Amino acid sequence: MKHSCVDPKLVERAAGVIEALIRRNLTVVTAESCTAGLIAASLSLAKGASEALHGGFVTYTKANKVTALGVDEDLLAREGSVNATVVRELARGALARSPADLALAVSGVLGPSPDEDGNPVGLVYFCAQRRGQHPKHLRKDYGAEAHDFLRHQTILDAFDIILRCVGET
Amino acid sequence: MKHSCVDPKLVERAAGVIEALIRRNLTVVTAESCTAGLIAASLSLAKGASEALHGGFVTYTKANKVTALGVDEDLLAREGSVNATVVRELARGALARSPADLALAVSGVLGPSPDEDGNPVGLVYFCAQRRGQHPKHLRKDYGAEAHDFLRHQTILDAFDIILRCVGET
Repeated sequence: MKHSCVDPKLVERAAGVIEALIRRNLTVVTAESCTAGLIAASLSLAKGASEALHGGFVTYTKANKVTALGVDEDLLAREGSVNATVVRELARGALARSPADLALAVSGVLGPSPDEDGNPVGLVYFCAQRRGQHPKHLRKDYGAEAHDFLRHQTILDAFDIILRCVGET
Repeated sequence: MKHSCVDPKLVERAAGVIEALIRRNLTVVTAESCTAGLIAASLSLAKGASEALHGGFVTYTKANKVTALGVDEDLLAREGSVNATVVRELARGALARSPADLALAVSGVLGPSPDEDGNPVGLVYFCAQRRGQHPKHLRKDYGAEAHDFLRHQTILDAFDIILRCVGET
């Protein structure tokens, strides 16, 4: 019986991220909306994960972004969940609630439908923040691709921005 | 190209959980140690997930259990992470930081090695708590099976205890 829960290709890429973090003696925490924990889960499957991964926050609904990470309720009501300000708040909230050196936040629309605020399928915002440094931002518009493809691509880009944030690319 | 990030069998089982929650008008949040977000991620892939899943807390390290969910540091130092008291604290901490009606917490050893406190591979504790009710506990000793099998089984048992907690089994 084969019980692989997560795509082995993601785990392979996750291994490179965990190695880079260990090399730099850094730890990470995630704040995930559209990926719902899959970035943390993929990282956890890499060898040595417990040395570099503290965990994550899955803030799937707006209400949970407020209660779990202290994102401003008025901001979410005014501007929705998918924008640069919200991912910065998610990263900041995660760092404030974790001993990690670096937070990676992601919020986007993986489809199949636009989100409740009208953001289009394929639009994803990322923020990687090291404690005491300026946050790094990334905005991707992958287009209206299939959900599986978008999720996969979002996780890979999340890994890339972590690597950039630790100075490995 | 196929980009399935999570085992479709898990998503199928997750769909039954989301349907049950929606039928009962209940919402869930997870607190995950050894599964590292994969329970939340699997639930998020089911149709209608945003009606029933608020999110989750991935508390992979002991330090993150303390900072993210307020688990007692002395308890973790004294008794380790894998026991009924810790999963109850994780569930309670998650409910306190989420608008969800029900929290599902899991902590265990998926291997390949025993944890730092000497708990054996295959030992997993679950706690499902509805707001204002007594928590439901489950202890599983799956034995020293492969990591993939243990992870898969842990997620399925997590789904089962959620269903029991909402009165659907």
